[in-house]
Amino acid sequence: MEKSDDNCPKKVEDVSLEDLRDKLAEFARVRGWEQYHSPRNLLLALVGEVGELSEIFQWKGEVERGLPNWSCEDKEHLEEELSDVLLYLIQLSDVCGLDLGKAALTKIVKNAKKYPVN
Amino acid sequence: MEKSDDNCPKKVEDVSLEDLRDKLAEFARVRGWEQYHSPRNLLLALVGEVGELSEIFQWKGEVERGLPNWSCEDKEHLEEELSDVLLYLIQLSDVCGLDLGKAALTKIVKNAKKYPVN
Amino acid sequence: MEKSDDNCPKKVEDVSLEDLRDKLAEFARVRGWEQYHSPRNLLLALVGEVGELSEIFQWKGEVERGLPNWSCEDKEHLEEELSDVLLYLIQLSDVCGLDLGKAALTKIVKNAKKYPVN
Amino acid sequence: MEKSDDNCPKKVEDVSLEDLRDKLAEFARVRGWEQYHSPRNLLLALVGEVGELSEIFQWKGEVERGLPNWSCEDKEHLEEELSDVLLYLIQLSDVCGLDLGKAALTKIVKNAKKYPVN
Repeated sequence: MEKSDDNCPKKVEDVSLEDLRDKLAEFARVRGWEQYHSPRNLLLALVGEVGELSEIFQWKGEVERGLPNWSCEDKEHLEEELSDVLLYLIQLSDVCGLDLGKAALTKIVKNAKKYPVN
Repeated sequence: MEKSDDNCPKKVEDVSLEDLRDKLAEFARVRGWEQYHSPRNLLLALVGEVGELSEIFQWKGEVERGLPNWSCEDKEHLEEELSDVLLYLIQLSDVCGLDLGKAALTKIVKNAKKYPVN
Repeated sequence: MEKSDDNCPKKVEDVSLEDLRDKLAEFARVRGWEQYHSPRNLLLALVGEVGELSEIFQWKGEVERGLPNWSCEDKEHLEEELSDVLLYLIQLSDVCGLDLGKAALTKIVKNAKKYPVN
Repeated sequence: MEKSDDNCPKKVEDVSLEDLRDKLAEFARVRGWEQYHSPRNLLLALVGEVGELSEIFQWKGEVERGLPNWSCEDKEHLEEELSDVLLYLIQLSDVCGLDLGKAALTKIVKNAKKYPVN
């Protein structure tokens, strides 16, 4: 089992952006889809998925944290749309030659400086 | 140093969605921002960041993979907008009580069944 | 037949934003849908339609003006998605109590000052 | 003054999509901007404006119809973003060679058949 810095077992569900990136690159490669994966094609695909994500929330009025009263089907549908956005975002970053995980860590540090805790 | 399954050192840049989620939850908590982080507020913030991401690409015509001829500043700006989308997506998933990393892995498996390799 | 300022017949296809707004308000009223038409619900519905619009263009690479080589079906589909975005935009403006047509004219004047012709 | 079918003065604020389209086409022509107005460039510009529109609503929680308690400045800002979305939507339709006003009327008729009044 994978060990973390403090030698404790890591939770098995830890999912790295690099693993997802590699899985997606291989997924596209073996299907001959790389030719379609230009930056702007992937960006528009991402916008399409953000639209599907928004459709889930569009007629609901305000929604409470934790989604009380949502059915399992609705939660599963939401998980799929959240995933679709993520998967295109990772692929867009990848074809741009950018490291999304490292960029995200850098952005959190930058935000922490911009919004200091009182 | 963290070890992966095969006992080789993991690349230091591996970034897990769970780490980012925990960092962002703590970031919001210590600033008293949790009150603003309802699902639909975060969703609209995500849409706002997708808009900023699109603005980078809007007048460029087709863009080649790897972004040849882009300046370092433009690439850095793009990294920031990609990160902003990711960070809101992670927070949206979190306040909905959903596990984005696990959902993404599940979606890749589902896609592999939907689009079999010839 | 309607006459324009110079007493020439107006083209019959002239469609005003006010006519569309009134038609849509009546459409919602007779169906009892006004209760769902809060500003943020309509905004998310608009985002959903922008997503569907983007899906039409997502795998096409650069598209030429006039859409040469597009089938009639594809053009009709595009007209429907463009319309859906417009119809939600008009309704969003309306429930916010804002006059979209007047605002658009004002914005064009503002843009003309911001970007003077050389 | 312009007269409507029943010979009554039309409200001066009636704004047609065709007028806006012609104004915008001329605006771009005299500035030499037509070269940038490819369909996908305009689509991404539209997505950018939808992002700015969403930012106005992102931290507000549910917003009531009519925007009670919004300042004049906030309403004016909203009018500008709604207009920006409209202006790009009109230009996108135009460079695609499609008649947005006619398409919108057709869509309302189609929706009326799809959702009959009880």
